[in-house]
Amino acid sequence: MARSGEVVSNKQVLARDYIDSNPKITDMYLSTAITKLELPECSKSILVKNLYLSCDPYMRGVKNPEPGRITFFAPNSPLVGYGVAKVLASGHPEFKEGDLVWGITTWEEYSLITNAENLFKINDTDVPLSYYTGILGMPGMTAYVGFYDICSPKKGEYVFISSAFGAVGQLVGQFAKLLGCYVVGSAGSQEKVELLKSKFGFDEAFNYKEEDCEAALKRYFPEGIDIYFENVGGKMLDAVLVNMRLKGRIAVCGMISQYDLEEHQGIRNLMHLIYNRVRMEGFSVFDHFHQYPTFLETVLPYIREGKINYVEHITHGLESGPESLVGLFSGVNVGKSVVLLSQY
Amino acid sequence: MARSGEVVSNKQVLARDYIDSNPKITDMYLSTAITKLELPECSKSILVKNLYLSCDPYMRGVKNPEPGRITFFAPNSPLVGYGVAKVLASGHPEFKEGDLVWGITTWEEYSLITNAENLFKINDTDVPLSYYTGILGMPGMTAYVGFYDICSPKKGEYVFISSAFGAVGQLVGQFAKLLGCYVVGSAGSQEKVELLKSKFGFDEAFNYKEEDCEAALKRYFPEGIDIYFENVGGKMLDAVLVNMRLKGRIAVCGMISQYDLEEHQGIRNLMHLIYNRVRMEGFSVFDHFHQYPTFLETVLPYIREGKINYVEHITHGLESGPESLVGLFSGVNVGKSVVLLSQY
Repeated sequence: MARSGEVVSNKQVLARDYIDSNPKITDMYLSTAITKLELPECSKSILVKNLYLSCDPYMRGVKNPEPGRITFFAPNSPLVGYGVAKVLASGHPEFKEGDLVWGITTWEEYSLITNAENLFKINDTDVPLSYYTGILGMPGMTAYVGFYDICSPKKGEYVFISSAFGAVGQLVGQFAKLLGCYVVGSAGSQEKVELLKSKFGFDEAFNYKEEDCEAALKRYFPEGIDIYFENVGGKMLDAVLVNMRLKGRIAVCGMISQYDLEEHQGIRNLMHLIYNRVRMEGFSVFDHFHQYPTFLETVLPYIREGKINYVEHITHGLESGPESLVGLFSGVNVGKSVVLLSQY
Repeated sequence: MARSGEVVSNKQVLARDYIDSNPKITDMYLSTAITKLELPECSKSILVKNLYLSCDPYMRGVKNPEPGRITFFAPNSPLVGYGVAKVLASGHPEFKEGDLVWGITTWEEYSLITNAENLFKINDTDVPLSYYTGILGMPGMTAYVGFYDICSPKKGEYVFISSAFGAVGQLVGQFAKLLGCYVVGSAGSQEKVELLKSKFGFDEAFNYKEEDCEAALKRYFPEGIDIYFENVGGKMLDAVLVNMRLKGRIAVCGMISQYDLEEHQGIRNLMHLIYNRVRMEGFSVFDHFHQYPTFLETVLPYIREGKINYVEHITHGLESGPESLVGLFSGVNVGKSVVLLSQY
């Protein structure tokens, strides 16, 4: 294994330019840098070897970036994203050589992380390390706070999840089943629909590409929807709104169907918020990371006891990164998209 | 005054047919019935003389009425709406001759009310009785629960109210000012804009017909909106969404700009619910009438001490009812629309 001080070749996935849409294969290129593994003097940076890189739906360009938002694509720079890494050298008092961490890193074999204070140390290694890009990382926390905090769920309630096979959706569905809810999910292929039912225990699932969503929702929710976990937006949201139940709740986590549109589709059924006194609430996991220890206490036992299943779409080698990222947006990846760089 | 047992002429405003839009003058006609003022035997009905009738924005037809919803317009029947009335005879143990009540009644001089249990008895008569169609009735309760319960307001917050000169809006604004908020309202005429500032103490107000709403909101809320009290929907809502502040709240009370459209305008900026973790919640005053005593304890002193102003658009005689109702929807009425039938 590479050591601090060594000069190494460092494969990278770089962006050609800023982007303002979903990423395409041609927006990225591979290159190899020669990197000396050393910390800047008097810095609190850490030097890491990346083990897993995560492909997530927010890794895209935005038309009008707001100040302070992370830029995932910048010209001739390695992509920025979540990952799991091993510390090679640390100038930060909270980390030492050999520590495993997860958090924001860069798409290359070795990264210098200047804001190490935003990283999480991994203490539990009896579960696959890749899980810290998903079920035990940001998507897991998103599912946890989105469902438990924003949806205020109760046993027996009727729950619908769009993009249910995504990293977040599959967990929300299983949290809801563990609580004793009736759970239906939508996904974009028959394979995913079958897996939602067979692997994740969803009561029902349907393919939104093949069914009229409003009719499907009427059929699966004859008494209406108490909780909608919103990942897609657009027509699906309009179809859900007319099927919401009295005092229903909508957790707005994402609207992946809209991100690449020049103008977002108009939502016409918001009057149903009044008819049924529905609460619709946007949230961001970044407001909730103080709950991470509680989250781990809840979810780690579920994993160890086999009460939660989890499907990953793991591709091998940094070279596979661009295709995996693009496949996330096109919907061809089945399960949480992760790129494996190194297992140690 | 007419007494129980008497045969009286009973002027009425009747609907020609069901309607599925905002009411027009030609949807209504006047007629005079001959009515014997008597209670059906063994009934819990009450017989009332109507004193004030209220024109409210929900008094319109709906394209697809849902079971259980009140029909305000039915063929050759008196319109249904809120009003203030005096009890002439009562078969209900909670009411007796001479009581003043407010609640759902019919647009005629004398009404037989079969579900008297839904009426509220008026005990405080040192304020104008017409107030029980507005500031002390349903619109007042709507403003009260919408603002205090749904918006969770805090002193110093930035509050925007659309249709701010309406019966509900003018109260929300004054509640917000009493709490120490910064308050801006939109209205549809320069007269209303001026009155919002001079009469109700709004910090700012603008005419949505003459200004680009998004630009006006940017100007009046350079730091964004904490609370939006939504009465109009459509483009105003889209303009507000991009101006919401972190952790903002939107109480969805009504969308009067949309009711008469064949298809509601699409709302395109809901992603801002996520960007700023905004909560948007529909509500109905009908869920909150148990709070009516607390409401009175709060608002009656405000009125008596002159801390709240209130503007009514009172027209005289049942004959003036249709024009007043239509004027509510066209926006020509200035203040809460009330029809005075009799002062005693």
